Amino acid sequence: MQLGLVGLGKMGFNMRERLRAGGHEVVGYDPRPEVSDVASLTDLAAALETPRVVWVMVPSGTVTHETIVTLADVLSPGDLVIDGGNSRYTEDGPHAKLLGDKGINFVDAGVSGGVWGLHEGYGLMVGGSDADVARAMPIFDTLRPAGDAADGFVHAGPVGAGHYAKMVHNGIEYGLMHAYAEGYELLAAEELIADPQAVIQAWTNGTVVRSWLQQLLAKALKEDPGFAAISGYTEDSGEGRWTVEEAISHRVPMPVIAASLFARFASRQEDSPTMKAVSALRNQFGGHAVHRISESG
Amino acid sequence: MQLGLVGLGKMGFNMRERLRAGGHEVVGYDPRPEVSDVASLTDLAAALETPRVVWVMVPSGTVTHETIVTLADVLSPGDLVIDGGNSRYTEDGPHAKLLGDKGINFVDAGVSGGVWGLHEGYGLMVGGSDADVARAMPIFDTLRPAGDAADGFVHAGPVGAGHYAKMVHNGIEYGLMHAYAEGYELLAAEELIADPQAVIQAWTNGTVVRSWLQQLLAKALKEDPGFAAISGYTEDSGEGRWTVEEAISHRVPMPVIAASLFARFASRQEDSPTMKAVSALRNQFGGHAVHRISESG
Amino acid sequence: MQLGLVGLGKMGFNMRERLRAGGHEVVGYDPRPEVSDVASLTDLAAALETPRVVWVMVPSGTVTHETIVTLADVLSPGDLVIDGGNSRYTEDGPHAKLLGDKGINFVDAGVSGGVWGLHEGYGLMVGGSDADVARAMPIFDTLRPAGDAADGFVHAGPVGAGHYAKMVHNGIEYGLMHAYAEGYELLAAEELIADPQAVIQAWTNGTVVRSWLQQLLAKALKEDPGFAAISGYTEDSGEGRWTVEEAISHRVPMPVIAASLFARFASRQEDSPTMKAVSALRNQFGGHAVHRISESG
Amino acid sequence: MQLGLVGLGKMGFNMRERLRAGGHEVVGYDPRPEVSDVASLTDLAAALETPRVVWVMVPSGTVTHETIVTLADVLSPGDLVIDGGNSRYTEDGPHAKLLGDKGINFVDAGVSGGVWGLHEGYGLMVGGSDADVARAMPIFDTLRPAGDAADGFVHAGPVGAGHYAKMVHNGIEYGLMHAYAEGYELLAAEELIADPQAVIQAWTNGTVVRSWLQQLLAKALKEDPGFAAISGYTEDSGEGRWTVEEAISHRVPMPVIAASLFARFASRQEDSPTMKAVSALRNQFGGHAVHRISESG
Repeated sequence: MQLGLVGLGKMGFNMRERLRAGGHEVVGYDPRPEVSDVASLTDLAAALETPRVVWVMVPSGTVTHETIVTLADVLSPGDLVIDGGNSRYTEDGPHAKLLGDKGINFVDAGVSGGVWGLHEGYGLMVGGSDADVARAMPIFDTLRPAGDAADGFVHAGPVGAGHYAKMVHNGIEYGLMHAYAEGYELLAAEELIADPQAVIQAWTNGTVVRSWLQQLLAKALKEDPGFAAISGYTEDSGEGRWTVEEAISHRVPMPVIAASLFARFASRQEDSPTMKAVSALRNQFGGHAVHRISESG
Repeated sequence: MQLGLVGLGKMGFNMRERLRAGGHEVVGYDPRPEVSDVASLTDLAAALETPRVVWVMVPSGTVTHETIVTLADVLSPGDLVIDGGNSRYTEDGPHAKLLGDKGINFVDAGVSGGVWGLHEGYGLMVGGSDADVARAMPIFDTLRPAGDAADGFVHAGPVGAGHYAKMVHNGIEYGLMHAYAEGYELLAAEELIADPQAVIQAWTNGTVVRSWLQQLLAKALKEDPGFAAISGYTEDSGEGRWTVEEAISHRVPMPVIAASLFARFASRQEDSPTMKAVSALRNQFGGHAVHRISESG
Repeated sequence: MQLGLVGLGKMGFNMRERLRAGGHEVVGYDPRPEVSDVASLTDLAAALETPRVVWVMVPSGTVTHETIVTLADVLSPGDLVIDGGNSRYTEDGPHAKLLGDKGINFVDAGVSGGVWGLHEGYGLMVGGSDADVARAMPIFDTLRPAGDAADGFVHAGPVGAGHYAKMVHNGIEYGLMHAYAEGYELLAAEELIADPQAVIQAWTNGTVVRSWLQQLLAKALKEDPGFAAISGYTEDSGEGRWTVEEAISHRVPMPVIAASLFARFASRQEDSPTMKAVSALRNQFGGHAVHRISESG
Repeated sequence: MQLGLVGLGKMGFNMRERLRAGGHEVVGYDPRPEVSDVASLTDLAAALETPRVVWVMVPSGTVTHETIVTLADVLSPGDLVIDGGNSRYTEDGPHAKLLGDKGINFVDAGVSGGVWGLHEGYGLMVGGSDADVARAMPIFDTLRPAGDAADGFVHAGPVGAGHYAKMVHNGIEYGLMHAYAEGYELLAAEELIADPQAVIQAWTNGTVVRSWLQQLLAKALKEDPGFAAISGYTEDSGEGRWTVEEAISHRVPMPVIAASLFARFASRQEDSPTMKAVSALRNQFGGHAVHRISESG
């Protein structure tokens, strides 16, 4: 089928390729002319037959919001907009309303798989009405991995459910990565272990902890033994924070995912105000030595 | 090759089957005559040609220790004992010494894969000398999963390294399981999500969080929707505790695995003394209502 | 000076008493006639000379909001409203705006000390303009504990700062209580310790951990040895949740306060969905026994 | 009474002063002649009338052990040794045995209060037989703070109980300090708060979180605003680690104290291997940028 695709970055670019390889006609728009098929969202709308389906794959937050505001202007009643970015689910209702006021339908889609999705397919979690989801199903069927549809695609619920499921997926991802990483650090600290990379490589088959992330960890260690080339400074992209906020809102105990989130925060601090306070307290009551800034600088 | 196998429980029984299917001659011993090939460890020794290789696959702790003490008596110099159970790595040195005093060699082997290992193969992490490990390699090659040897088997280091790697593997396992479980609880708490099981099923292909454990979670939820049939009371088998103890010993921060361990402890408490104290404190300063035992009983 | 006081519950009732003992004229309003000095907020306004100062001491959330909406109607330009409840600081701006549109000024006040404040004084953290804070200073001076003003009162910043400081105070309180409680549980679990209460009593003087909460813990244990009479079911009143949410918003690592919050959530669950999932997973891969609901029921 | 005191460092020096001020005759030994009253442990023994009481106040571990070994040689049957250092409680049994074989009695004493104990008194937790504790009671009575004996002294149980109680005390201390410190960091991160120090100063009186440590935090911030002069690098002295290990041994959930311990470990890492692994994983699946060492160096 025909699809408009807004955003041709790391994710959108590959998705266009996979969809075209799957026989779809994709008209892509991106502000960078060297990758874009059309010059503007207005041109995108003009290039598509109505009723149109337009997939938005741009950074979450302001960029997504502004894109949807513009689409509400250039699209027509009966069209369908799919937000495939990492938007917070709380933005889906307002976006659906904004578009709905113009008679335009809305589906939110959580997309997993990263740069590997081009060849392996993307795990998809979508939210919206049955009719809207059905209409975009040929696209979903091409994007998702081969195999049983239920193993790489879910219509998770009404508008918002797709991004909610994706948010939880990413929260889990934080916890998984941290669990592997803690284990790696312990292996690397223990002199009995001749080569942590070899142990982690050996876990890729037959063990209880085998997983795609675990394979990537083995691959990363092979490429950069001892992680000598990179620092521990680690960004977070929002979903981890939102997941813990949702946990608090639902009174769900979430110590593991929260711990992995807090460790990312800490990784980005040059020095920890909390630990300065603890160190100052130890000095106050015990006369314990503290590290002066001049010593550690 | 010929192998003596002590312990024919859930793990050992399946391993005997896999080894025999792989063309090895296995003489198994178990105190339960209905599964045992011989009547005693003495008979086991008599049934094997020297130099013997004997695999011990019995519960860790006392049973493993007593088995090794007996084997030290019934085996001969030049024989090799492999401890494939979940022994703490600190017991491997003393066991190697105890056997070594009789001229018997020792290898420790961490074995992963659970009840699925029979058909999928067992992930193996072994510790010992190069010569001892080489000698048992035909056995390892049959037990491990098909495919590259490096993806399911590792000679992790000297005696103790195999169990150390297995301990860390299981510690990671605690964290992974808890991360998935926290995500499941949040999905189940959110009304936007029509069916948590369907979401988790959809994560089995194409997503970043896909893994063998993740597939098992989907399977478990399909078999027991909403986990209506089981309680949250969860045992721990030692490796999680040992992993956190090792982290403390190595000064490795391990918040995620520790949190998953503590949650298991808490799951086995009828009521939490810690929370009783917190509740009592709130009552003391704020006059906040407390739940009397009679109310909650 | 003259003060209107709305809300004569556990906190407001005692505050009226302390303020009257300090020589102030307090007109109190509460929906319960048996404690109220006037019959309505309209009567309260009528009973006070302009420019009025009215202190609101009612449950946070809807009740506080509705009280302020009503006060905006019955008060006059130049009056001052002080919200002394546990409102979330994000509500202070809108309340200041709502009142400001009528020419009424606003100060937010975090009040600590619980039922002990009547005699010991209340720790106060206030937010607002210098002029507004100065105007209510005679009230603050009576409510706060005797001694240096800087040791029991702070003008923490503009509107919102008082409740922000109180929110953080309560978040810390969660962590403190949990640290004491974990230590108590460990003492109670160790057979070497003849009497945990005696140990905790002995910590009330001379030790590094001595504190007011620590004294209350000793007192609580004396009154209810072994906490035999109460359950661990523990409410949370909002500030702990908000503190962790603020930490996430500011990217502040907050593992200790978050852990104490999550433990409260867990204390209120009959069974943990997370632990059911973990237990189900163990059963899947290892054939480990699970506790069926029928066993544990 | 007469007392031998081994170790005249920060703690022992002050204790000698407090004991002498209390009318006791103290013979102190320290390897530094400028503070020592005698030249050797042999001289110390010679200087005391039998039956002697000798208090050991030296670094825990090897130094304490070697001191006790020497005392076993130079003391006589019927003497009493008190270990007042921060020994792990598991060492008390062997020390009692070692001394007991020579007919020498043993008491373990946990001592809290730090450098402030000289004037405020030391919180004491002791373990041993009733007779041994009674014999040293005049010493304990002088060292402990003024006021009710039960509020600064406890005979916690048999040998080992004193150090056990002190260990838990210090574990709690870790959690308390971290809770205050997390709150401080959040206050410092929030622009509404004009001056975190003033807020923390105001908490010293009337609030629920007031405590001795809280006063020290206010004092530390006043002396070094914003903790500009010190780094967050924070040592741990053993008791925190032992407390968490005991919690694991007793299956006591201890998320708060463990989190504060792990944060100390992390504070001493130049870069976190765990976070390097997490960052590498993000890069693998998402093509997310990582910080190369050259960038961050």
